[in-house]
Amino acid sequence: MELLNKHVTIRKFKEKEINDELLKSIIYSGTRASTTGNMQLYSVVLTKDKTQRERLAPFHFNQPVAKQAPVLLTFIADFNRFVKWCEYRNAHPGYDNFLSFFTAAIDALLFAQNVCIAAENNGLGICYLGTTTYNAQEISEVLQLPKLTFPVTTVAIGYPDERPELTDRISVKGILHNEKYEDYSKEIVDELYSFKENLEMSEQFVKENKKETLAQVFTDIRYKKADNEFFSEKMLNFLKLQGFLG
Amino acid sequence: MELLNKHVTIRKFKEKEINDELLKSIIYSGTRASTTGNMQLYSVVLTKDKTQRERLAPFHFNQPVAKQAPVLLTFIADFNRFVKWCEYRNAHPGYDNFLSFFTAAIDALLFAQNVCIAAENNGLGICYLGTTTYNAQEISEVLQLPKLTFPVTTVAIGYPDERPELTDRISVKGILHNEKYEDYSKEIVDELYSFKENLEMSEQFVKENKKETLAQVFTDIRYKKADNEFFSEKMLNFLKLQGFLG
Repeated sequence: MELLNKHVTIRKFKEKEINDELLKSIIYSGTRASTTGNMQLYSVVLTKDKTQRERLAPFHFNQPVAKQAPVLLTFIADFNRFVKWCEYRNAHPGYDNFLSFFTAAIDALLFAQNVCIAAENNGLGICYLGTTTYNAQEISEVLQLPKLTFPVTTVAIGYPDERPELTDRISVKGILHNEKYEDYSKEIVDELYSFKENLEMSEQFVKENKKETLAQVFTDIRYKKADNEFFSEKMLNFLKLQGFLG
Repeated sequence: MELLNKHVTIRKFKEKEINDELLKSIIYSGTRASTTGNMQLYSVVLTKDKTQRERLAPFHFNQPVAKQAPVLLTFIADFNRFVKWCEYRNAHPGYDNFLSFFTAAIDALLFAQNVCIAAENNGLGICYLGTTTYNAQEISEVLQLPKLTFPVTTVAIGYPDERPELTDRISVKGILHNEKYEDYSKEIVDELYSFKENLEMSEQFVKENKKETLAQVFTDIRYKKADNEFFSEKMLNFLKLQGFLG
């Protein structure tokens, strides 16, 4: 499928605004995604306003793409709306737990991916910001998210002002398991990762960062153990504060 | 976007098999989805074999769709492959934590949604099985999943043998927040949910289950507090066992 197969992340956008009708239309396409028991356990907060964007930027580590995109969409795992409905209808909800959080997160992410595909189908470009889960609490304060909600990802969106090439992926063989999971031997790992390791860009990363291997660039620089542990604890604490850990 | 906007869940499939090339092609489209730092923190296990399907069925609560579909795809949040790569490359990974699990879950879900859209674009029908997170441990045993992996969802897939109508959704207005989250008053809830509540099917659910409101059908029958709490604990315990809670 052409549209999916040619997807590339866009980090540089034109100044051109996205009109409201188009935004509503791609969000509508999002709502057509599968959702658990048709409960639609998600919301999305649209950020255009300059002040709001300046408030959010540091929590996305001031990535240029987060500052430069005309629109940020923050996708929320949302049990608040559903629970409000239950309460107004004399029903006694029990969704203040981890399973319910994760169920809402699934809903929100399928919704988000549909929105992204609909956006690309309309000539827009997108960039997922993984920083959302790192700073979920601070982002929630800016967006005034209530209990039983949690921001799971943010998408920067706008008209592309660059045309990057397709990025490398490991082969389908490397991620598809028939009937049972077959663990990865050194030989298979060598085969799956050699293409990536031999890219000029990868070799440059290794050299610039004075590392021995590309994997070390990930473990020692980009996604470090200490950071992961720090942000894990932060995320779990905020899940508790939002009412999702009992 | 026509394809997204006309999505319906299919629960009845023709006996017709899906050929391997087509399966590989839709999974390839999945791999083109955005992924954190291009780490591709997912795998997928394909189940066609009758014995394997019989083993999985009870963990999907013997839903007819799980038994009848020619193929099940179980989507795995997978840090195992990446960590193996790190270890073979003299790098010291730190991904045995909750943030890393959730990052891999995001990757796996965006991948899954792309696979579903590519499937539908090729005339296939899909049904997400939310039961995967309820019985992640048992499913992982059947599929022989190693540590640092976790099944996040399953998709039943095949050629549709039914044509259900579009299901109801609340309006875009009900899920889209401008700049800040606006909490839901009773008036807004009434407005958003009245369409669903007044559907003939909903009224029938309420009557059949001897409830006062549709919300009570959800809280007292379909997604009960006691079940949610039981499966939450089960899920958290298995996350720990898989090495994702330190």
